[in-house]
Amino acid sequence: MLKERLMKLRECRPLIHNITNHVTAGDCANLLLAAGASPIMAEDPLEVEEITSVCGGLNLNIGTPSERKFQAMILAGRKANSLGHPIVLDLVGVGASNFRKTEVERLLAQISPTVLKGNASEIKTLATGIGSNRGVDVAEQDKSSDTTLEMAKALALRYHAVVLVTGAVDLITDGVESYAVSNGHPFMGHITGTGCMLSALTTAFVSSNADGILEAVLASTAMMGIAGERAYHALKDGEGCGSYRVYLMDQIYLISPDILEEEAKYESRK
Amino acid sequence: MLKERLMKLRECRPLIHNITNHVTAGDCANLLLAAGASPIMAEDPLEVEEITSVCGGLNLNIGTPSERKFQAMILAGRKANSLGHPIVLDLVGVGASNFRKTEVERLLAQISPTVLKGNASEIKTLATGIGSNRGVDVAEQDKSSDTTLEMAKALALRYHAVVLVTGAVDLITDGVESYAVSNGHPFMGHITGTGCMLSALTTAFVSSNADGILEAVLASTAMMGIAGERAYHALKDGEGCGSYRVYLMDQIYLISPDILEEEAKYESRK
Amino acid sequence: MLKERLMKLRECRPLIHNITNHVTAGDCANLLLAAGASPIMAEDPLEVEEITSVCGGLNLNIGTPSERKFQAMILAGRKANSLGHPIVLDLVGVGASNFRKTEVERLLAQISPTVLKGNASEIKTLATGIGSNRGVDVAEQDKSSDTTLEMAKALALRYHAVVLVTGAVDLITDGVESYAVSNGHPFMGHITGTGCMLSALTTAFVSSNADGILEAVLASTAMMGIAGERAYHALKDGEGCGSYRVYLMDQIYLISPDILEEEAKYESRK
Repeated sequence: MLKERLMKLRECRPLIHNITNHVTAGDCANLLLAAGASPIMAEDPLEVEEITSVCGGLNLNIGTPSERKFQAMILAGRKANSLGHPIVLDLVGVGASNFRKTEVERLLAQISPTVLKGNASEIKTLATGIGSNRGVDVAEQDKSSDTTLEMAKALALRYHAVVLVTGAVDLITDGVESYAVSNGHPFMGHITGTGCMLSALTTAFVSSNADGILEAVLASTAMMGIAGERAYHALKDGEGCGSYRVYLMDQIYLISPDILEEEAKYESRK
Repeated sequence: MLKERLMKLRECRPLIHNITNHVTAGDCANLLLAAGASPIMAEDPLEVEEITSVCGGLNLNIGTPSERKFQAMILAGRKANSLGHPIVLDLVGVGASNFRKTEVERLLAQISPTVLKGNASEIKTLATGIGSNRGVDVAEQDKSSDTTLEMAKALALRYHAVVLVTGAVDLITDGVESYAVSNGHPFMGHITGTGCMLSALTTAFVSSNADGILEAVLASTAMMGIAGERAYHALKDGEGCGSYRVYLMDQIYLISPDILEEEAKYESRK
Repeated sequence: MLKERLMKLRECRPLIHNITNHVTAGDCANLLLAAGASPIMAEDPLEVEEITSVCGGLNLNIGTPSERKFQAMILAGRKANSLGHPIVLDLVGVGASNFRKTEVERLLAQISPTVLKGNASEIKTLATGIGSNRGVDVAEQDKSSDTTLEMAKALALRYHAVVLVTGAVDLITDGVESYAVSNGHPFMGHITGTGCMLSALTTAFVSSNADGILEAVLASTAMMGIAGERAYHALKDGEGCGSYRVYLMDQIYLISPDILEEEAKYESRK
């Protein structure tokens, strides 16, 4: 069932509007091209409505935030909502500052994301208002929390969105149906941007699979994880993080619908 | 004839001032170093005049624009003009928003670029005021337009600039003499920034070849295309976009004046 | 003695707050992860105090400056000082504009860096107020200056900081004790960001080695140089700058405490 999602992405070749952090903007653009989509980055309030209008989906990432960028996210997000374009919101480090937390609350009062994404600490911050973030990484005490899926489900219902919680096992839920994805490799933690790239990829998947958002998020999450596994196996003696980052992008390009179908590891969760 | 242009670039090692988008800024800096030039990025109106004064050329790229960045482009551009430094203006997505279109018009009323660069859609937007952009990509209906060269010639005469239209076949014209360059590889479209990198490279070429701007643009365009071809041939089984991006940079470093001369594919156009 | 410094870095895994230029921000984040630390980038005055509070060290880099970013550096720097977190200040192109020079003076009147880093031209600008910068590169006349170490010592005493002067031979001094490090490879000059990456790495080293700042800077500088040497030896026929950049990151990940100890080349200086 996942293979059709990737086939559709590659047929549609959706143009994705990204308002994202400047650390991994290039990685997200390259990821989208490798996956078969097309990127545009634009973050000035003076043009984001027009830009997002010609796109198929909107990827919002709150890393390296500023007031002006949040203003752009509201404008672009409202336009995307009014046009029925899907929005992915990546809650990077939402618990790391009051500024991020307050602005995300303001944002969610004005726009309706299709997908909310974060690690367990970020999802907890959004669900409870109490953060336990170690910067943009997940806090140790949040890692094994049994309550993560429950919080994700509650958020999904509250925001009428699919919630994607990243981690060693990724959780995906629309509040009713839930999945756990066990693809991925610890080596992904040795490079920056894999989370941001997953958000970009997810935007491309949901933009080309309006008829199956939950499954599209599942396909995207599995695909990123498979790329992480395959990139690790491609590593040769004497290679490290630099080569891994290259191979990860290679794999996003190389993974076929059949590979995605065969190598995806997920199960339904109660 | 092209080989001398590259020899001069590598003798001069020009310092290039870049006011560019933040998505591919690192790629442009690395490209300039690989080619034998040197980059500096600075985009605050408070310092751009001073910065550009010690450089050999100015590379302006309107991706991820803001009012402040356009203000910086005007200040840097006027200073560069007054000092006789060449300016390359890359019209990234000029038709994608009224903001970009209006600001580019304001910019062109105050500075005189040496080279104007865009894809067929961007050039058409500048020539006719009517955009048909799909974000930063060329629109399908503009791809095979027979009128592209005519529009480019008219723009070249209007702005006393060399116009470079990128595409499967790149067109270069000063309004009188015109060339078509057929180097390049479709795989270049699978990574971001090849257009931005070509602008940076072109700035380095014209900054070190004041006596032959048209030929310098021709050399730059052919060199970028040759790098794209050679990078493709360097790809091994199991490699994709990530490796391609690395090999492209390798090739910019490795291409010698003789390789450029031998592998350049261009013809004069009426 | 250097090996213990790297062992401590990898035990601590310090979270480093970076306020840095946007050209190499991704490279710095990846470098920190490869070395065994963890990065967060945040540069809005509205959140930098909070962000830096949960981090172990602060990396300030004045490339692509703006007034708002300098304001953020002051806020973050004062907070870091008050918490006893180490600060590394990289003087990128300080002599390239009056804006940079004036703002750095204002910055140094309000914060106390633990480490001041620059090339010979940048250090000279700070020491004498007179710049001779060629953009962000060292000026030819500053390269062999016998007075560089004397200026570095004076700055170290004036600012109660360790001063790191990068070059073919790197100089490190606290004003009393001084070292010259001869690791490194000229090929490092063919890619952008090696200086910025060294600043990030140095922040990670000093953040996890409060009991030996001078030695931590020595370890960091040697490690970056060793990575540059090893990356060069990893280059195969037909490879250039693109591959070199990948291998450099590989080596930062691969260098063990024992390799650092064995391959470090430094001597004490009077």
